Amino acid sequence: MIDFQNVIEAVHKELKSETNKGLVASYIPELSNINPQNFGIFVKHINGKSYAVGDWNVPFSIQSISKAISLALVLPIYKNSIWERIDVEPSGNPFNHLSLLELENGIPRNPFINAGAIVIADMLVTHFKNPKQVFLDYVRDLANDQTIDFNYSVAKSERLTGFGNYAAANLLKSFNNLENDVEDVLDLYFHQCSIEMTCEQLSNAFFMLANNGKCLQQKERLTSSQAKRINAIMLTCGFYDEAGEFAFEVGLPGKSGVGGGIIALLPNHFTIATWSPGLNEKGNSLIGMKALELFTTKTKRSIF
Amino acid sequence: MIDFQNVIEAVHKELKSETNKGLVASYIPELSNINPQNFGIFVKHINGKSYAVGDWNVPFSIQSISKAISLALVLPIYKNSIWERIDVEPSGNPFNHLSLLELENGIPRNPFINAGAIVIADMLVTHFKNPKQVFLDYVRDLANDQTIDFNYSVAKSERLTGFGNYAAANLLKSFNNLENDVEDVLDLYFHQCSIEMTCEQLSNAFFMLANNGKCLQQKERLTSSQAKRINAIMLTCGFYDEAGEFAFEVGLPGKSGVGGGIIALLPNHFTIATWSPGLNEKGNSLIGMKALELFTTKTKRSIF
Amino acid sequence: MIDFQNVIEAVHKELKSETNKGLVASYIPELSNINPQNFGIFVKHINGKSYAVGDWNVPFSIQSISKAISLALVLPIYKNSIWERIDVEPSGNPFNHLSLLELENGIPRNPFINAGAIVIADMLVTHFKNPKQVFLDYVRDLANDQTIDFNYSVAKSERLTGFGNYAAANLLKSFNNLENDVEDVLDLYFHQCSIEMTCEQLSNAFFMLANNGKCLQQKERLTSSQAKRINAIMLTCGFYDEAGEFAFEVGLPGKSGVGGGIIALLPNHFTIATWSPGLNEKGNSLIGMKALELFTTKTKRSIF
Amino acid sequence: MIDFQNVIEAVHKELKSETNKGLVASYIPELSNINPQNFGIFVKHINGKSYAVGDWNVPFSIQSISKAISLALVLPIYKNSIWERIDVEPSGNPFNHLSLLELENGIPRNPFINAGAIVIADMLVTHFKNPKQVFLDYVRDLANDQTIDFNYSVAKSERLTGFGNYAAANLLKSFNNLENDVEDVLDLYFHQCSIEMTCEQLSNAFFMLANNGKCLQQKERLTSSQAKRINAIMLTCGFYDEAGEFAFEVGLPGKSGVGGGIIALLPNHFTIATWSPGLNEKGNSLIGMKALELFTTKTKRSIF
Repeated sequence: MIDFQNVIEAVHKELKSETNKGLVASYIPELSNINPQNFGIFVKHINGKSYAVGDWNVPFSIQSISKAISLALVLPIYKNSIWERIDVEPSGNPFNHLSLLELENGIPRNPFINAGAIVIADMLVTHFKNPKQVFLDYVRDLANDQTIDFNYSVAKSERLTGFGNYAAANLLKSFNNLENDVEDVLDLYFHQCSIEMTCEQLSNAFFMLANNGKCLQQKERLTSSQAKRINAIMLTCGFYDEAGEFAFEVGLPGKSGVGGGIIALLPNHFTIATWSPGLNEKGNSLIGMKALELFTTKTKRSIF
Repeated sequence: MIDFQNVIEAVHKELKSETNKGLVASYIPELSNINPQNFGIFVKHINGKSYAVGDWNVPFSIQSISKAISLALVLPIYKNSIWERIDVEPSGNPFNHLSLLELENGIPRNPFINAGAIVIADMLVTHFKNPKQVFLDYVRDLANDQTIDFNYSVAKSERLTGFGNYAAANLLKSFNNLENDVEDVLDLYFHQCSIEMTCEQLSNAFFMLANNGKCLQQKERLTSSQAKRINAIMLTCGFYDEAGEFAFEVGLPGKSGVGGGIIALLPNHFTIATWSPGLNEKGNSLIGMKALELFTTKTKRSIF
Repeated sequence: MIDFQNVIEAVHKELKSETNKGLVASYIPELSNINPQNFGIFVKHINGKSYAVGDWNVPFSIQSISKAISLALVLPIYKNSIWERIDVEPSGNPFNHLSLLELENGIPRNPFINAGAIVIADMLVTHFKNPKQVFLDYVRDLANDQTIDFNYSVAKSERLTGFGNYAAANLLKSFNNLENDVEDVLDLYFHQCSIEMTCEQLSNAFFMLANNGKCLQQKERLTSSQAKRINAIMLTCGFYDEAGEFAFEVGLPGKSGVGGGIIALLPNHFTIATWSPGLNEKGNSLIGMKALELFTTKTKRSIF
Repeated sequence: MIDFQNVIEAVHKELKSETNKGLVASYIPELSNINPQNFGIFVKHINGKSYAVGDWNVPFSIQSISKAISLALVLPIYKNSIWERIDVEPSGNPFNHLSLLELENGIPRNPFINAGAIVIADMLVTHFKNPKQVFLDYVRDLANDQTIDFNYSVAKSERLTGFGNYAAANLLKSFNNLENDVEDVLDLYFHQCSIEMTCEQLSNAFFMLANNGKCLQQKERLTSSQAKRINAIMLTCGFYDEAGEFAFEVGLPGKSGVGGGIIALLPNHFTIATWSPGLNEKGNSLIGMKALELFTTKTKRSIF
């Protein structure tokens, strides 16, 4: 049995002193003001045990990590009909490019590029009367923590500056791949991205993907097959234009966010969340990526 | 001296009986209801003489032809600083593609693709307090006809369905190439496109481009150099992805619109406007393009 | 313990009767003449046991499957310096497109698109005096079968019609990413693709990738880390533009070839080879893809 | 009447002293050794008069200028069937990109991108027994100067380093848009580009395009319509990715070459050739472009 606590402490110690911690996202004030020295790791084992180090208990903006949660929420409702409106192929392009969307007639390459996540949000807006509340309740239930909340100030800032997302949503609409009003869909999208969680809460929320669909309280949230499929998409598409690199270096399904968080998991074993706000040039947490590389090297645990 | 009246009557007769007149634009009801049998030609010679045949006196939606007028309005104000925000190269792509815009960091390829015309509209919104009225007055003065007006119903329909233009404007905004609010800029853009004019009015309005910058009333609207530059852009970029074909087959600077109108001109000689609402697969008037080909073949007049 | 023999017989029976078996590759006579009714499956378990059904003992052209073998041959020699000349990201494009190669300055997206495999071949030509013989000996040793051979007629046909590969190699050369003569590199490339193997031989040859780098005779061919990395690349890039779909539907690292073969594997468990010559529109074996989907559904075995 | 001699002397004087003369092409030794201080202008009026200044009598490598000559040679033979294999739209891309060629199924965008000129060369190889000699004789006849010749050393250097052209030719072949062997076609192509001519010889050779198809000796080489069409293509496609800029700033049909030469012309008036070996970042002669801008500004002569 691996001594996870020992491993994550070693990883934390090794990386804490790195001078280059990447650049904190600066497009909205709420993100740019975060201290780049924050660094936390949390591991939740399938057997219920937890391991933690550093700033694992500080909430941060989950941003694109929310895309994996919204996919998990929508999958049992829409099932395979999702894939008539979104593909599951890696984008081969940075995360906010519209070119491929246009070339491929408004079908986003996968649910984790912005355009794909906006289509998922559109499905939720169609299905639920109050999709924002439903989404928030879902996250709270998964993490078994009712204190989790939106950061309304972040959501508002995203709305005021998110011209790229408005462009994507309107382009989807022009291809008849958005059923609801652009404003309604983006209202959900900006709020889901604004949710703040700690490393612990994230590890708990994603527990179901390491546990064949059953959440922390062992309630079936997804079928085993649905959980596997989300894992497959996280592995091939979870890290923008760096998905291949992450599979290559780390070898775990995962999802990153521009807030500096990363969630990753080994099916039937554990989930692991890291947080370090500085990003590399691909938009993924610089130290978080290194931490996961070190972690899988030291534990010799990967899906490969 | 060419007998222009004879030529355009022969062209009109030859094409009037064609069974394939192309497909009328169908994305808004106001355009889709136009009778595809409409077909008019009007020639305005630099010496003041006019020649007309068919439905030359029926107003139609000028649509993208307005882009050449807005360029003419903005050029004497912003002069060469325009070209810091827009390029002058052919797009090599259909008229509403965002891909190149994204690849080229928000600098539209030329002022006649939608994104480029939206930047021009942005300049007018910045410069004028009431840009819509200024634009309308400019067109009325150029054509020497105060009855010309917006079609508010068309403008409203464009606003309700113009998701591609909203996408373009937001993408420009995300690249900091739009100074004003997306809604304000598109409000001008949709109204300028909605203006209705007859072949005669169009021929008169573009008179200045055949007359070294001096309009019908011989007032200098553009310097000779500015008129030449607009002509050069019309030749290389005036027909979406068919600009090369038009230069090759017709050999005149010109601009087409999705309403089925085309304006073309031979510097120091004449302007010619055609209208036939059915479009070819590139979005240009099918019969209009053929009419101009026949016209330049019969008159042996082209810039080459 | 799963009854593998039972499972593959059920899969074989279920798919054998499908009327649509896809289209056999037709660009060279040697491939177009293959009977599309051929269908074999072979499973090699890490514990040494074998399971087989159908035409598992008929040799076929391995084609692109050879790209994973050449990567395995080159990796212990050039180690991480490989990645200065080739990336590890999915291509997001069909397998023979040069556009991305040009956009990305001659760095192939991954070692499994043709351009990437040609760079790998170039490394072998630089390193070995007789690279074709070295490559063949390596395959024979891995599969523990000295009867495996090139099909010289296939290699010759590929050379006479492989204009796309000549284009790729010359484009690489123009970007200074090819050290040797185009002809020398393509000579190795066309020969490695022409190798003929049975499902059994393939399963044996790839045994090392399921066995932490140790081949059938338990000799270390790759470090454990190198084996994992090839698996990661197979998962994200092994199926042309269908890699995401394969990860999503099957959930195993694998590699397909235009000859209708597919090799896939579950680390620490087994390798599985299928062969059915008819291809789907993405260029992967239609029945082979379905067989692997059924296999992982029935056995509930995947990396996710 | 304009005093052309006066104008070109003023232009020459103004630009001769510019310190930034651009960068001489360096990919083959024969071009990189040219003195960047060379600068000549030659004007040939339709009335037979000539005007010259500077190094107008020094031969230089015409390179891509030869593409306009090969189009003129092939047009009366293949007529409109040429356009089944090549389009006439601007490329919207730098001159050696293969991406569009691939996207558009092997149909080059126009006859002046390398791939298009290679298809023209292929037509000549199909039609003539000794296409190189036919091409050379054609140039000699047009310029009325039998001393014009290939530079075999340049042609050989191009062959040894022209991997991008080999890539283009093989890609064309893969799309069945090349009838002959790649080597045979490129042998003609590299030789036609290697021809050396003076400004005077170029002005004379292109005389027919300003003279409705009749060459210097008033022999009809092209119909009037064919001459106009080549002029239209030169205007829209003659300057790589800078065609719009050239139309915009200069307003004459023309063609440039990487050897630093530019030919331009005003139909029914004159041809003008400039030579200055330093290139701008788009691959056109830096001083040559400026000279033509100044020339048209001073003479107020352009097609617009």
